[in-house]
Amino acid sequence: MTDNLSATPMRLSAWGVTGIGEIRPNDQLGDIIVDACRIAPNGPLLDNDVLVVTQKIVSKAEGRMVAIDADDPLSHKALVEEESVRIVRRRGDLIITETKHGFVCANSGIDLSNVERGWAALLPIDSDRSARRIRDIVRAKLGVSVGVIISDTFGRPWRKGLTDVAIGVAGVAAVVDLRGTPDALGRVMQVTEVCAADEIASAAELVMGKASGVPVAVVRGVDPSWFRESSMQEIVRPPQEDLFR
Amino acid sequence: MTDNLSATPMRLSAWGVTGIGEIRPNDQLGDIIVDACRIAPNGPLLDNDVLVVTQKIVSKAEGRMVAIDADDPLSHKALVEEESVRIVRRRGDLIITETKHGFVCANSGIDLSNVERGWAALLPIDSDRSARRIRDIVRAKLGVSVGVIISDTFGRPWRKGLTDVAIGVAGVAAVVDLRGTPDALGRVMQVTEVCAADEIASAAELVMGKASGVPVAVVRGVDPSWFRESSMQEIVRPPQEDLFR
Repeated sequence: MTDNLSATPMRLSAWGVTGIGEIRPNDQLGDIIVDACRIAPNGPLLDNDVLVVTQKIVSKAEGRMVAIDADDPLSHKALVEEESVRIVRRRGDLIITETKHGFVCANSGIDLSNVERGWAALLPIDSDRSARRIRDIVRAKLGVSVGVIISDTFGRPWRKGLTDVAIGVAGVAAVVDLRGTPDALGRVMQVTEVCAADEIASAAELVMGKASGVPVAVVRGVDPSWFRESSMQEIVRPPQEDLFR
Repeated sequence: MTDNLSATPMRLSAWGVTGIGEIRPNDQLGDIIVDACRIAPNGPLLDNDVLVVTQKIVSKAEGRMVAIDADDPLSHKALVEEESVRIVRRRGDLIITETKHGFVCANSGIDLSNVERGWAALLPIDSDRSARRIRDIVRAKLGVSVGVIISDTFGRPWRKGLTDVAIGVAGVAAVVDLRGTPDALGRVMQVTEVCAADEIASAAELVMGKASGVPVAVVRGVDPSWFRESSMQEIVRPPQEDLFR
């Protein structure tokens, strides 16, 4: 243990926020989350809690739903290309694209699950902004300073199974730089940048689940030193630094 | 909400297990963890807890430490090639390999941080077996049935920052298959396999940290239906199904 680390181990806890109904275009998501957090067993929120909000309800509230022909798979595929800046891989029905945001994921992040038949949910235009807006409303209405992460469910190369990752952040570090921190043997660590936001999104997924319709979670007990201004630019790796596109 | 889902949201909690000292070759890791869990504030363990154990101490206990010439970076690089079955990418000092286990990661998972200068830690030969051994000792000595995940810190394409993932599992699902489960609108979800083990490993990392020398965490509150026989074969994607190697 080094001087800058607490001897008391951190305790993390996470739970789903219940009572958030179906979200519709122009719903004020921040207000809805605040109201849900006022009701037991969800609240009250505390400073340095992290609210993890799934992309689907952000897209719905921000009017990012697009009508598709449910019987024509091509209407969906055309959207995938419109939302992308680059096709990274294509095999059969699977298209891996780079989105306008710089995310590399299947189908430009366009999702047909948990939306009505005949509709597709596009990713929010700027999920950092969506996160900041929720953070600002929580601060204004509840007087607490929380981090907000907009999460989505992405696949990845080499490993089966999806995990939840961050697509928008506000008020909590996206990547924590531990370079220069002494390791447990007192050696300075060379390269250890941890993607805190993705790990928090994954922890939140464990209490939200894909099928249960709980679209917001609270994660409490995140390292207090990680709360600061942030953006997805900390996570998005520029193409020229990337070996896989 | 569907009938097979509880109306009570799950609550997840995670904390680091303190009091585990420096691990040496031939240490009985299961016994050491059991002893630490007998001491407040760590224990007691309960059925369906998940123990997340970092690869580094497993490698140390299993004698996977190899002497290297600390002044010759090539001695380390030779090991990287020996431990790999395929070089996936190489740029400058960075080598992305496929290991004998089928993991794709930097430097065949060989790590020089948190080990004494002049030594390198190779990945365990069979981390599923390492996990099963810890699970068996916990069951024998404490009478509780836990899941065990051996975790390591991997990078990934497209996104900066490292996250913790599973490299060995026992007693808890690696991948949870939600295909056929109705989504929140009652539609059957097409493809949603969640890598539960990686998400649990990420949640655990948030309480262990890279620098704090806490090599074991307990994660409590994981969906009880996920506890079953498992192996890393659920996660490792066969090369012929992979678009990125």
